[in-house]
Amino acid sequence: MDAIDFPNEDLWTRTVRTIQMLAVDAVEAARSGHPGAPMGMAEAALVLWARHLRFDPTRPDWVDRDRFVLSAGHASMLQYALLHLVGFDLPLEEIRRFRQWGSRATGHPERGVCPGVETTTGPLGQGFANGVGMALAGRMLAARVQSGGEFPVGYRVFVLAGDGDLMEGISYEAASLAGHLRLGNLVCLYDSNRVTIEGATDLALSEDIRRRFESQGWFVQEVDGHSAEEVDLGLQAACGQEDRPSLIVLRTVIGRGAATLEGSPKTHGAPLGPREVEATRERLGWPRDRMFFVPGDVAEFGRSIGHRGTRLREEWEVRFATWRREHPEEARRWDEFHRTGIPLGLADRIVTEVGPLAGKATRDQCHRALQVVAREVPALVGGSADLAPSNKTRIEGAGDVSASDRSGRNLHFGIREHAMGAIVNGMALAGPFRPFGSTFLVFSNYLVPALRLAALMRLPVVFIFSHDSYQVGEDGPTHQPVEHLWALRGIPGMKVHRPADPLEVAVAWEQALEGGPTCIVTTRQEVPALSRPEGVGLDAIRRGGYVLREAPGGRPDLVLLATGSEVSLAIQAADRLEAMEGLAVRVASIPCLERFEVQADAWKKAVCPDDVPRVALEAGSTMGWWKWVGSDGLPIGLDRYGDSAPAEVLAREYGFTPEAIARRVADWWRSRKGMPSSGDQ
Amino acid sequence: MDAIDFPNEDLWTRTVRTIQMLAVDAVEAARSGHPGAPMGMAEAALVLWARHLRFDPTRPDWVDRDRFVLSAGHASMLQYALLHLVGFDLPLEEIRRFRQWGSRATGHPERGVCPGVETTTGPLGQGFANGVGMALAGRMLAARVQSGGEFPVGYRVFVLAGDGDLMEGISYEAASLAGHLRLGNLVCLYDSNRVTIEGATDLALSEDIRRRFESQGWFVQEVDGHSAEEVDLGLQAACGQEDRPSLIVLRTVIGRGAATLEGSPKTHGAPLGPREVEATRERLGWPRDRMFFVPGDVAEFGRSIGHRGTRLREEWEVRFATWRREHPEEARRWDEFHRTGIPLGLADRIVTEVGPLAGKATRDQCHRALQVVAREVPALVGGSADLAPSNKTRIEGAGDVSASDRSGRNLHFGIREHAMGAIVNGMALAGPFRPFGSTFLVFSNYLVPALRLAALMRLPVVFIFSHDSYQVGEDGPTHQPVEHLWALRGIPGMKVHRPADPLEVAVAWEQALEGGPTCIVTTRQEVPALSRPEGVGLDAIRRGGYVLREAPGGRPDLVLLATGSEVSLAIQAADRLEAMEGLAVRVASIPCLERFEVQADAWKKAVCPDDVPRVALEAGSTMGWWKWVGSDGLPIGLDRYGDSAPAEVLAREYGFTPEAIARRVADWWRSRKGMPSSGDQ
Repeated sequence: MDAIDFPNEDLWTRTVRTIQMLAVDAVEAARSGHPGAPMGMAEAALVLWARHLRFDPTRPDWVDRDRFVLSAGHASMLQYALLHLVGFDLPLEEIRRFRQWGSRATGHPERGVCPGVETTTGPLGQGFANGVGMALAGRMLAARVQSGGEFPVGYRVFVLAGDGDLMEGISYEAASLAGHLRLGNLVCLYDSNRVTIEGATDLALSEDIRRRFESQGWFVQEVDGHSAEEVDLGLQAACGQEDRPSLIVLRTVIGRGAATLEGSPKTHGAPLGPREVEATRERLGWPRDRMFFVPGDVAEFGRSIGHRGTRLREEWEVRFATWRREHPEEARRWDEFHRTGIPLGLADRIVTEVGPLAGKATRDQCHRALQVVAREVPALVGGSADLAPSNKTRIEGAGDVSASDRSGRNLHFGIREHAMGAIVNGMALAGPFRPFGSTFLVFSNYLVPALRLAALMRLPVVFIFSHDSYQVGEDGPTHQPVEHLWALRGIPGMKVHRPADPLEVAVAWEQALEGGPTCIVTTRQEVPALSRPEGVGLDAIRRGGYVLREAPGGRPDLVLLATGSEVSLAIQAADRLEAMEGLAVRVASIPCLERFEVQADAWKKAVCPDDVPRVALEAGSTMGWWKWVGSDGLPIGLDRYGDSAPAEVLAREYGFTPEAIARRVADWWRSRKGMPSSGDQ
Repeated sequence: MDAIDFPNEDLWTRTVRTIQMLAVDAVEAARSGHPGAPMGMAEAALVLWARHLRFDPTRPDWVDRDRFVLSAGHASMLQYALLHLVGFDLPLEEIRRFRQWGSRATGHPERGVCPGVETTTGPLGQGFANGVGMALAGRMLAARVQSGGEFPVGYRVFVLAGDGDLMEGISYEAASLAGHLRLGNLVCLYDSNRVTIEGATDLALSEDIRRRFESQGWFVQEVDGHSAEEVDLGLQAACGQEDRPSLIVLRTVIGRGAATLEGSPKTHGAPLGPREVEATRERLGWPRDRMFFVPGDVAEFGRSIGHRGTRLREEWEVRFATWRREHPEEARRWDEFHRTGIPLGLADRIVTEVGPLAGKATRDQCHRALQVVAREVPALVGGSADLAPSNKTRIEGAGDVSASDRSGRNLHFGIREHAMGAIVNGMALAGPFRPFGSTFLVFSNYLVPALRLAALMRLPVVFIFSHDSYQVGEDGPTHQPVEHLWALRGIPGMKVHRPADPLEVAVAWEQALEGGPTCIVTTRQEVPALSRPEGVGLDAIRRGGYVLREAPGGRPDLVLLATGSEVSLAIQAADRLEAMEGLAVRVASIPCLERFEVQADAWKKAVCPDDVPRVALEAGSTMGWWKWVGSDGLPIGLDRYGDSAPAEVLAREYGFTPEAIARRVADWWRSRKGMPSSGDQ
């Protein structure tokens, strides 16, 4: 290990205090924040950063850097202090403006806002599970390019987690999978300060953490978090584990160093207050009147840590260049996995291959499309939370990822939807993978917190949610999604595709690869093939919404908007309305509302004119459709729970047949015109 | 233990086979379902029902019955077969129509649909955590009424869980709390058949289940799930545990008894198929041509189990009557806890006590209201996922619930939002408690699956979500809810109250107690006191939406709809619009859209007329507001993630000041009229 030596004890101690006091001062200046955890973890974190973590502050995107994840995101000032000291582009000025508008030093670490922050954390447990995903990505990349030897993937993932992280269910799920897959490149430092917001952890927790993690296949150590030597030895032992993830339990005192509040829950989430700060300065021998004080030799020491990292990275680059020369085949694969962008003509190729499946379930169409994408995009990997045979999300001809062989492309997440979401996020964060996850649409609500973070970070991840309506049938209301489509669409930055046929499936995949998180929602049941007018193909679909069936003469009396499995239903209803009611009906397919919404007004109006009465048709909640049909429009959906019965019975009971839809629209039309209803016709 | 003796081996075996074949036949007839788990668990479940479970099929609501929870809800036919055999009101006819429209034998067990089903299961892990809540409720009730002795609360909770249940994060969370609280009245039978949908469990799981549960304080046994004696001894030992929850690992074979598919994942989720069924009949010595066959002596044996239960219940009633006579004080408390309905004048009393807090944060108002409700409703108990000091949800003057003393009213759920949701559900299911849970609104997404089940079951539970907007400020986007209000409102049957002042807080609590799940959403920040017109008080608020500030002459140019903290903002904006733009503005407060929606049209139109332009104002997603403002209306909200900065800075940046709102509304108004915008005025 090419580690910085420990400096003399005095300088070391003052470096720890610099970190602690930067946290204290920043929280004090912001009048909000969490000083306790940064103070308690300062020494252990410094050991990690000074002697183990491989990073280059001048190149935060170095592909083989170790990943540092502050899962306990409220301890953000710990990370900011370290980032500043070792020379990341985080000047003291940013820390002075901690938690202020425009500062990189946000309340919780935000990826893309502050250099050196690998993932946005704060919602507890997410960072821990992201870390598992990053470690998995590292092992999977290594398995792909290292056939000839060890180089070039050697990064480790270091997660700093608190009690809150480890009490969240997602952390047990993720830890279980990490142990199962024997991710020896994952090390979690657990800040066991025995204090939570409501008081001592023993109010609600009496687990034997060692046994818990051992039961999941982890290597567990327990050390004094305030002893640099113990932490250092612990990290050495952890980094020596090739085949087991490591947990290092750090016995720490929250608010370490504070004059009178050491160990108190009061240091957790609020400024210490001027009096305590003054007393703490005195106790730590810190200058009374200098906020944000960084002694000259501490600054120098910090920079030396950064310089070591730059050197490490430069050495890596040299070895990498050599490796590339000497392993042209592996280097080619490396480049292949790191290629970004969308393969030329991808959508057309998908259409060609999926086209014959028109008339099948969209989950089957999506499955075929997945095979095309997998062929063209080697970085695509993924799996299901134990529903792959139902979701139809297996990459055929590719192997499984297991503890003994990580070269496969199919992941078995187990029945762990929430961890799946965050692990997929972590894989995307680590790169170069384009990961996907899948489950039933109804269970998308198990992973919403991870979906939100994917959207907040704009991660290029894909989630495939099958069994997308009451058409699930016999499994009943617990398995029939109702509110889920709008819950997903409600997440800012999430793109939700609900394709109706092979062409729409092709565009869903194409646009998923453009970046940003995407949900592809598919049916369990077969859907009729659509006949498309001349010239209405991929380009129209790419706009998220388009006219699929024009009214005679292009002059609709009304417009029917529909998605996915209801598009064919809308067309059948439109045919009836024309034949039996003499109404001119346009049907617009809206596979992706988020895309449609950002089109030019001219396009949107051409599809869905303000001055023509509008009906929406979707087998789920009507909630968001009012925006598109207007308050005098008619959104037809299901704002109730389903029932256990065969799908075709439910369709009849719920009025999701062409006849019932046509009748309902006709009645609405007549009542708009003040005409009598059709009654029982 | 007053248990039924094992019958002769032949009868026993044929009873097991009856259960197995009922499951096989029902799934075959329905052409969908899960035969494997019922077949594998039939024998163990029969031991439980015949010799341990206390229930009376003629009185499914017997208050001290043992609770049986089929967490592995897909194994529903196991429960239906047992319910039928022991004499619950589930005739064979219902089982013949398994999974058909209107049958009580739904795809997954549904509470309120099938007698004897204690909770609706299917989404994995939920039933397990419900069971923890039920066991907790039992212990808490006992601690309240048993000061003089053991009687009358003696029920146990038996959970039947599969691999899927135990892989879900929620089960670790719930198990951790169950162990912490030493719930010795909880016994979980774990069907360890080592098979999941994707194949063998070791694809994704290699935990040491024994160590895992032991690390959480459980008593763990492992037995042969196909040996009645071993299961029986295991249950006896488990029921002997006073201070630890028990896990009995049942080593089982999925599809036990099937001719060629025993042990195969193929038996998990699909009919065996006619050929396999025929061969299985032959193997088990079952008549070839009789579907749904129940031999006469098996039926008799089943009934005798039921009769034993009836006798147990009758004996309990006698003892209960004696106990009541001999313990009048405890009996009075018993009645108090079992009282339902809303105390007379509750809302008025809340107004009186909370009134002085007008101008404070609504979380503070809600806290004060909670004290009043707690005083009037002894069954009210609850807590937070480690945020009680922030959520302000402590019942003052009442103790904590701990392993050593369960007489308190404040629960410490730990940082386990998902389990909190399902445990609260379980407590409500067991009764007599009126439980609540709380966390930040932004983290409501951690417990959505439990909220959905609360709504599906119409449980009388309350969730208090504080810190309800960008006004959280410095903590940044990870802590600022955006889409959450509509995500909650989207759950069918969920009532969401976002009160603006003490009167609306009072109605929120009153209506929460009317039943059905309710979310009360509160602010972190202070909100100005509202001045109310004469006569606009509780009765108006009870309608969910009402006119709070009328336009001059009652003839508004436009209507401003607002909720919670934005009501005062709307009023200030209205004042400006009148003063500076000469517009007559009505402000309607809409504390509960679900209530408002079910009012008579006359009321709704009087508040929010179709023919007057409408603006909605809410510090969150605009998604569902379009229904109320129309497509030419103006929903003002935040359809983006927040930022880390002081709340007042964010309000300015996001245009949530009276000036900015007034300007925006005026511009919109002018553009409607084709007038030029106000520019930078």
